[in-house]
Amino acid sequence: MTLPIDTPAVLVDLNVAEANVRAFQSYCDRHSLKLRPHIKTHKLPQLAEYQLAQGAIGITCQKITEAEAMIAGGDMRDILITYNILGAEKVARLRALSERVALSVVADNLTVVEGLSAGFAGANKPLPVLVECNTGADRCGVETPEAALALAQAIDAAPGLKFAGLMTYPPVGGAAKVTTWLAEAKARIEATDLTVEVISSGGSPDMWQAHEMPLATEYRVGTYVYNDRSLVTRGICTWDDCALTVLATVVSTPSATRAVIDAGSKVLTSDLLGLEGYGHVLGHPDFMIDQLSEEHGRITSAQPTGLRVGDQVRIVPNHACVVANMLDHITLMRAEEVAGQETVAARGQVW
Amino acid sequence: MTLPIDTPAVLVDLNVAEANVRAFQSYCDRHSLKLRPHIKTHKLPQLAEYQLAQGAIGITCQKITEAEAMIAGGDMRDILITYNILGAEKVARLRALSERVALSVVADNLTVVEGLSAGFAGANKPLPVLVECNTGADRCGVETPEAALALAQAIDAAPGLKFAGLMTYPPVGGAAKVTTWLAEAKARIEATDLTVEVISSGGSPDMWQAHEMPLATEYRVGTYVYNDRSLVTRGICTWDDCALTVLATVVSTPSATRAVIDAGSKVLTSDLLGLEGYGHVLGHPDFMIDQLSEEHGRITSAQPTGLRVGDQVRIVPNHACVVANMLDHITLMRAEEVAGQETVAARGQVW
Repeated sequence: MTLPIDTPAVLVDLNVAEANVRAFQSYCDRHSLKLRPHIKTHKLPQLAEYQLAQGAIGITCQKITEAEAMIAGGDMRDILITYNILGAEKVARLRALSERVALSVVADNLTVVEGLSAGFAGANKPLPVLVECNTGADRCGVETPEAALALAQAIDAAPGLKFAGLMTYPPVGGAAKVTTWLAEAKARIEATDLTVEVISSGGSPDMWQAHEMPLATEYRVGTYVYNDRSLVTRGICTWDDCALTVLATVVSTPSATRAVIDAGSKVLTSDLLGLEGYGHVLGHPDFMIDQLSEEHGRITSAQPTGLRVGDQVRIVPNHACVVANMLDHITLMRAEEVAGQETVAARGQVW
Repeated sequence: MTLPIDTPAVLVDLNVAEANVRAFQSYCDRHSLKLRPHIKTHKLPQLAEYQLAQGAIGITCQKITEAEAMIAGGDMRDILITYNILGAEKVARLRALSERVALSVVADNLTVVEGLSAGFAGANKPLPVLVECNTGADRCGVETPEAALALAQAIDAAPGLKFAGLMTYPPVGGAAKVTTWLAEAKARIEATDLTVEVISSGGSPDMWQAHEMPLATEYRVGTYVYNDRSLVTRGICTWDDCALTVLATVVSTPSATRAVIDAGSKVLTSDLLGLEGYGHVLGHPDFMIDQLSEEHGRITSAQPTGLRVGDQVRIVPNHACVVANMLDHITLMRAEEVAGQETVAARGQVW
């Protein structure tokens, strides 16, 4: 079927996205887990509002400018920014934000805590700060429960700040280790006069096992709203659960087993996430998108592709979040009907 | 040295970019080769105008919307779009463009030729179309000199179109094979009553060997204006010739040998171009950017990094063109002085 859409285009099927949101909200409700979706995947106030309407307690952003874009475009009241925020200019913007919504942030080091404190000293209300903990993903986070305690105490002692709890971006499949780590940190901290109100965990790959870590009070998840090839490959969802697809047109068929489409790395991105090839061509499990340049994607197949110049193909990308960041506009769908165009409000917001 | 720039930021040193433009223009002038820079790298009318002022005969774009953005922002008079353009809407926009500048395009198949002809039938002047030839890069292009002749004849016979020559995106290091291929195609075509006015080749990796293929009448090159880690690794240029860098701040130092910066795949992109790691940290050849998530880059080192939270690092990315596509604005520099902010006019223009 040919869609009346100029290509390349990023399509989001709202029916699928909304069903994904409802399904995981329902799971969280069953397990009394608070859900705080990460907007980095969709970057759309409209979908954040849908997530909140279904029961999410607030949203997660990674950057201040993402939070600003979400507030500008929708009714957001509770935002956690899971990032070490540094620099006087950024902290001043953070303080302005904190006067508009219930805002909290994370920190994993004293330099960040001191910067936040300098910016929030004298504020009407203290800024809640969670200690980011490295429970095995080896990105950010304090390295040990002892270090978590020390930073919690530093936050508690810092003017303008309030220690609010613990946050981790856990390693996939690491629930047992993560629980041990966080339980020890919580015990150490609560052996002082501090309370760990929030323990925030997250991640789409383990989302259906979130209840196995009851220690966590809230769960952050982003990709689940769209899903992608990475999550299908991990068995988390099916192709039918993938709300975001890339629509492309065959522009060249140099040989029977090779075709070139008008979606390259400027749409699909080069994110592999451990997979082979740059996306799954729906209906053609035998196709491989084996090479991307900026504006071309190359499809190869052991058998003749059967594709003709002008044919459309629809691709589930490896990683939905980064694809949603590439174009200023996406096309909203309801099943096979075009429901409109939407500006990706928080696209490219990296500050 | 700490620059007074909020991070992450994409910096372009105009001194270096302009020197790169002058150096290759001078080479082309020495070899009587016409230069037609590809604007996909910088996406800036300002730099395209500089390239033209130094002697470029026109510019290359990959997409119609890139060409539109360049015309809107600068004085462009001669544009080659090296893409199979398909679809009535795109062809109509192409025709509108052709009334404003000297425009030419490429085609590698009859479907594209027929679509262009349908859109240009009755136009004031015919649209010049070059036959795209696959000389070994195995992306687009007709597969044989015989097929080039057949398509040239089809273009010549198509109302509204004019056969203008041959175009190839050659494989790196393939000059001898490319020359044989194109010479045979030219001979076959000129054995009819057609003339091959233009033979357009290109590519940054082989740019300093462009004179070894005298058959080509013009050369297209994009990355040379900024250069990048890929070209340094190939020995085409030095770190000092890299005009585009990413400025990032260390936001976490979880261990002595690991640091996390505020530039992730939304700035550096996941393009590897066959390299290990996601960029070169200037002044730190021992550092590896071994992992990116959207907003975090992880630096690892066998030795302690010596980095502290708040330190700035400057990174030469693997692939400059795709990095220039990630943010709406770049910071222009003159050596270590900030010269202003610039909107990346043709960013995200994929149609």
